[in-house]
Order: sequence, then structure tokens, then C-alpha cells
Amino acid sequence: MSYERRPMSIEQKSFEIITQEMGSAIDAFDATLQPVVKRVIHTTADFEYTDLLDFSDDAVQSTFDALKSGCKIYCDTNMIVNGLSKVALGKFSCKPYCLVSDEDVSKEAKERGVTRSIVGMEHAAKDPETKIFLIGNAPTALYTLLEMIKSGDCAKPSLIVAVPVGFVGAAESKEEVLKYDVPYIRVRGRKGGSTVAVAILHGLIYQIFQREGI
Amino acid sequence: MSYERRPMSIEQKSFEIITQEMGSAIDAFDATLQPVVKRVIHTTADFEYTDLLDFSDDAVQSTFDALKSGCKIYCDTNMIVNGLSKVALGKFSCKPYCLVSDEDVSKEAKERGVTRSIVGMEHAAKDPETKIFLIGNAPTALYTLLEMIKSGDCAKPSLIVAVPVGFVGAAESKEEVLKYDVPYIRVRGRKGGSTVAVAILHGLIYQIFQREGI
Repeated sequence: MSYERRPMSIEQKSFEIITQEMGSAIDAFDATLQPVVKRVIHTTADFEYTDLLDFSDDAVQSTFDALKSGCKIYCDTNMIVNGLSKVALGKFSCKPYCLVSDEDVSKEAKERGVTRSIVGMEHAAKDPETKIFLIGNAPTALYTLLEMIKSGDCAKPSLIVAVPVGFVGAAESKEEVLKYDVPYIRVRGRKGGSTVAVAILHGLIYQIFQREGI
Repeated sequence: MSYERRPMSIEQKSFEIITQEMGSAIDAFDATLQPVVKRVIHTTADFEYTDLLDFSDDAVQSTFDALKSGCKIYCDTNMIVNGLSKVALGKFSCKPYCLVSDEDVSKEAKERGVTRSIVGMEHAAKDPETKIFLIGNAPTALYTLLEMIKSGDCAKPSLIVAVPVGFVGAAESKEEVLKYDVPYIRVRGRKGGSTVAVAILHGLIYQIFQREGI
């Protein structure tokens, strides 16, 4: 069978195709956001994300600063932790983690009759070293984070990637983000997911590498 | 903020919404396939998968038999391994694994100038205990598996989940599957991904649990 077997060629060709098919639609985004948009489409093969992605003005700079400070990154699924490039994050001494499979968290969630995502977020958001939050699965995790920001139980994050996917609360929770003065990248509506969350952070990280010659 | 915090209610309501919005479109699928279709939509919030999912007639029964035999499951990303329910697979003594981050595999891929997905699959497909293949990322992994089946270097799999995502070879590799007499579940076109691969196997597994009262 005849097909492309070389990894760099595949990646390069993919982005060429995406750029070509997007045409002028990419111009709707600031130059620093374009790599993020393209990487999400690379991950999903779904051009609808061009219309669904939404960024706060301060999201990119705030994320750059947080990454360079070597912050912790809370992820609402272990799949996100697993999907993030350890090599890339290692260059900033940034540590991704997830608590939903933690034994204490599972036990507490069961006792209280709430999702493990809620309890996991309650613990993570209290840690001042955790400045970036990647939420690709659970609206309840996003709601909990927002409540804690409001009540002052959590310092203002450097970035919320608000991309929980689904049919119960996902779209609503992502609208709620707009009420807060906090750097965010979100997907409007029901779509999103763990792979989308990973793509967004990678889009930002690879851009810093390029900019700073890392 | 008022939102649903109970895990079982969220899952149940999600599937009720999916069932309602799909309407009669679900009738296009056999009863044993319907839970798989719904779970993919639950994971992606993308109803287009109703038109993109395609199953061979023998896929469900063949997968059930393989799972009950306690086979190994090769996944083309670590995200898939991570996303699969360890509790569920443990009930069948099935073991998911991925080789793309294996040191020897990385070294060999670099030396040969091919993707790690190719080399990982070459090793996995030679193992007769590996009967289920979940391919959510790399067309090159899928092509390699098909070539090995053709050449006789790999026994006929019990299931190929052919859902690599992307722009270079993804759609083409998933058409190639049709030329083989092998049980498959695939997504036509460019879409797919690690979360889709996980959803498909979970859809099958939870159905066995329900059917057999596990």
C-alpha cells in the first residue's frame, strides 16, 4: 500500500491542508490564537470549531506567564494528563495532575452523592500553585471552579480551558465563564472533550517554543 | 449556581437527550449497535457520527467472544489505554496496552524514519494474544495492521476499531479496511480520535454486562 510513513511529513501536510481549507476564516483570529485553532481542528477534523472557539483577550499572555513560572496544571480527566506532552511541559517544570481517581476523592464523592469531578476540583483549586485548569469532561468541575473563584476560595486562575463536552450542563457552564474576569479559552455549545483540551494547551506551548527558540 | 451534581442523573439524562434528539435515526442500527452509536455521540456531542459509523455484521459477536477469552487489546495511543475502564476490563482479565512510547520502539522508528505508530503496531500484531485493535490516531498504524493481515504476519483480529482522525491518510486507511474479511467498527471520513475509540469499546462492554448481569 502506498501511504505517507514519515512523521514530520504527515504533521506538516496536515497543517497545510487545514490552512488551505480554512482560507480566510482563520483571519478572524489574532495571530497568537491561530495555532490553537488549527491544532484543535487537527485533533478533531471538525471545522465547526472555527465558529465555536472563543478566547478572552488576556488568555495567551497570561498562559505564557503561568507556564514560565512552572505552575501546576489541573486536568479534569486522566486522559488529559496522559495526552499532554511530558517533554514539552518538562521544559517549563510544569506538572499536570488529576484527582478524580484519587481514593480519598472517590470516597468523599460517594459519601456526598456528588461527582468525583466536583470533589477533585475542590481540592485542586485550593492549591495556589495550580494556575491553569483544563476542563474537557465535566461541567460540574467547571461550575465548582467558578463558585470557588466567586467565594474567594480559589485565587484567580491564569487560564481556564473550558471545553467540557456533553448534554447536561456543558453548554450552560461554558456560558457562565463569561461572567467572570478570568483568562479563558472555551468552546461554545455542547462540543469539546479531553483531546480538545490537550490540543489547546499544546497549541499555546508550541508557540512559545517557536517564539523563544526552545 | 443551580446544576445537576449527581453522577448517575447526569449520565441518565444525557442518554435520554441523545435518544430523544436522534429520533428514528437510531433505527438504522441493529439493537446491539445502538448503545455504541449513542456512546460515541455522548462522548463527542456530534450527531454526525450517526452517518459516519459503520459496522461489519460480525463485529459485536466477535468482540464479545474475544473479551470473554481475556485477550490483550492494542491501542495506538496511551490516551486510549488511559481512557479505558480498568474496572470493566478487569472483569474479563483483558489487558490494554500501547507501545508508541516504548523506548525500543521510539529508537527503531527514528532509525527507520517511520512513525512510532508503524513500529508499535508491527510488534503488537505479532502477539497472538492481542485480538482487539483500537486505532484512534494514526492511519499508519491501521495500514500496518492491514498489511500484516494480508502477508500472514498477523492472525485475523477479533475486532479492528478503525477510527484514526485527520487529514493525511485517515479517510483512505478506513476505506482500505473494507477490502479485508475482518470484524470492524469504523468511522467514515476524517473524523474519529482516541475518545471515540474508547467510547466504542465501552459501548460494547457495558452491553455485555447488561446482557449477562455482570
